[in-house]
Amino acid sequence: MNKRLYLQHQVLQGNEEIARQNRELFRKHSVLVINMIGSPGAGKTTLLEHMISQVKKTAKLGVIEGDVETTIDSERIARYAIPTVQINTHGACHLDARMIADVTPHFSLSDLDVLLIENVGNLVCPTEFDLGEKMRIVVLSTAEGADKVQKYPAVFQQADAIVLSKTDLLPYVPFDLDKFYQELALLNQRILIFPVSALHGEGVKEFVEWLIQKRGDFQWKG
Amino acid sequence: MNKRLYLQHQVLQGNEEIARQNRELFRKHSVLVINMIGSPGAGKTTLLEHMISQVKKTAKLGVIEGDVETTIDSERIARYAIPTVQINTHGACHLDARMIADVTPHFSLSDLDVLLIENVGNLVCPTEFDLGEKMRIVVLSTAEGADKVQKYPAVFQQADAIVLSKTDLLPYVPFDLDKFYQELALLNQRILIFPVSALHGEGVKEFVEWLIQKRGDFQWKG
Repeated sequence: MNKRLYLQHQVLQGNEEIARQNRELFRKHSVLVINMIGSPGAGKTTLLEHMISQVKKTAKLGVIEGDVETTIDSERIARYAIPTVQINTHGACHLDARMIADVTPHFSLSDLDVLLIENVGNLVCPTEFDLGEKMRIVVLSTAEGADKVQKYPAVFQQADAIVLSKTDLLPYVPFDLDKFYQELALLNQRILIFPVSALHGEGVKEFVEWLIQKRGDFQWKG
Repeated sequence: MNKRLYLQHQVLQGNEEIARQNRELFRKHSVLVINMIGSPGAGKTTLLEHMISQVKKTAKLGVIEGDVETTIDSERIARYAIPTVQINTHGACHLDARMIADVTPHFSLSDLDVLLIENVGNLVCPTEFDLGEKMRIVVLSTAEGADKVQKYPAVFQQADAIVLSKTDLLPYVPFDLDKFYQELALLNQRILIFPVSALHGEGVKEFVEWLIQKRGDFQWKG
């Protein structure tokens, strides 16, 4: 193993340990933690806003917004009057377990049902960094193209569900829907795919209903 | 400086030295090297295909394709019968100067005018890694949203030109064109912006003509 790979290995090992501690803490408080991953502009924040609108009556939500710079996203989320913390990575291309551990004290975990984490806009870096989440959702927009499944296999392989966003653009972009489903099936036969137009609200309900059903795995509060 | 930042600093310093050597080699052979950066699905490869079609009659081109996995992009480029090398980073989120130095011997540099490098699809990681290029082009698609300038300032600040791609989607996406121009002007007053629809071929000619004009900086061959 060369020096750089060795250092990367050390970083990942350190991350695993903190992620384990995070997961233990979230489990103790029965908080369902969801890590949302996707490219810049895939539509993660818009989807998050829909999720919040539909879930906040039945469950207590918190949000962690990960961005390289700015508080644009946390300001969008703040309008929903739920606990929100912005992490600015200042150049780092993903969140890591330490960053999550550092902001967790800002939440009253015993009052939360679901903690939604929007990772930094990136299809590569966040893949290897376990944050201590229970679920991973990958958001891919139709504008990005169906070949992204083959080109970035790791992130899709590890996902619990894929949201195919911006389906309203399908008539205008060269997105091969059959190829997309076929490539995903090759990677991960059990994967769930939710086609969504967050702009027009289509498909969001089905996705959120699935999420709500998932809470059966948990001892939810309230 | 903590250990991780120190290691990152060391990696970048090592990269700078190799980038300097690459640049020296490219200068010696009068090869204009262009580093193209953008998110997955921003439209880099399609733009590259247009650039090749329009330039290959007047200049000798080579292409380096950077991808995490697959040879999909280099296969697309291979149809144009120009020297093309695929680099698969297997998890790494950007190209670095060492990777470029390693594949440079596959090209006959004295026979090249322009070497086009398509970086790994990512708006964050490639920013800090100088490859030894002469020019940096950032490709952002209208589907990604105008707020990406504020959210990923470094990559836009360092660019020689921005290609705003998929302008054919403007009627269907909430992209604030005024905000986009204003935010870019705040970051970098001299920056050039080329609105392009690679799908329909609009705006590509203007961009390529500017590139061809840029070759005046070089002692072109042939």
